[in-house]
Amino acid sequence: MRNTARWATTIALTATAVCGPLTGAALAAPATTAPASLYAPSALVLTIAHGDSSATAAPQRAVTLTCAPTASGTHPAAVPACAELRGVGGDLDALAARDDVLCTREYDPVVVTVDGVWQGKRVSYERAFANDCVKTSYGTSVFSF
Amino acid sequence: MRNTARWATTIALTATAVCGPLTGAALAAPATTAPASLYAPSALVLTIAHGDSSATAAPQRAVTLTCAPTASGTHPAAVPACAELRGVGGDLDALAARDDVLCTREYDPVVVTVDGVWQGKRVSYERAFANDCVKTSYGTSVFSF
Repeated sequence: MRNTARWATTIALTATAVCGPLTGAALAAPATTAPASLYAPSALVLTIAHGDSSATAAPQRAVTLTCAPTASGTHPAAVPACAELRGVGGDLDALAARDDVLCTREYDPVVVTVDGVWQGKRVSYERAFANDCVKTSYGTSVFSF
Repeated sequence: MRNTARWATTIALTATAVCGPLTGAALAAPATTAPASLYAPSALVLTIAHGDSSATAAPQRAVTLTCAPTASGTHPAAVPACAELRGVGGDLDALAARDDVLCTREYDPVVVTVDGVWQGKRVSYERAFANDCVKTSYGTSVFSF
């Protein structure tokens, strides 16, 4: 079973390499186009810390998020967070600020990190926001934990 | 509840800062010395790839591992893996090779990465092994996924 999963992963990665980068749409629905064992690994750890850099700010919270074959993890909103990530093809910088959130200009920075693997590609992401309200205004679920 | 958890985390981190680094023994049993909400975050993503460096080898498998308040995640042996990590105080380099495993000298390297947070401290770890057998000989559970 382990070997089967490994071969399936190898095949999936090879297919990706041969066919070139998948589009956002293709990334959005791997579960519906392939058997459950035929998906690239996706497993993330997200942290939040008070400060403007993860190098100097100790994480206050850390959650896990797995999006395949099903949404799981200690992220409090795993299902919508996975849907949101799929919606932007895993590109965290593409999470746009919502218009319906008004924040003060107070500078009390928070820094978010996302590490691990998304659809077979390594992720090492860090983003600082001026304050917690601004952070929450980006996307709807991914950064809300 | 979110704020309560945040304050609890802040208090725990402050206590760590005031009291200095915890010893391995203290790290080993946070759940028995503190209420469930009073623990530093621990959430990890582990990957395995064929190659000698994560910079060049695409991950074949990726799993999550959370050790507090209870062992969980997509790691296939979360409970013993957490016990093993606690046993070495989160120091992955301290996982020793077992004597009861005999491996060939074949060079077919695999590289393991561990990223995230262990007991409130950021983890960014990478280790290459000469082959899969050698990898499995280190520790008993953490690298077996």
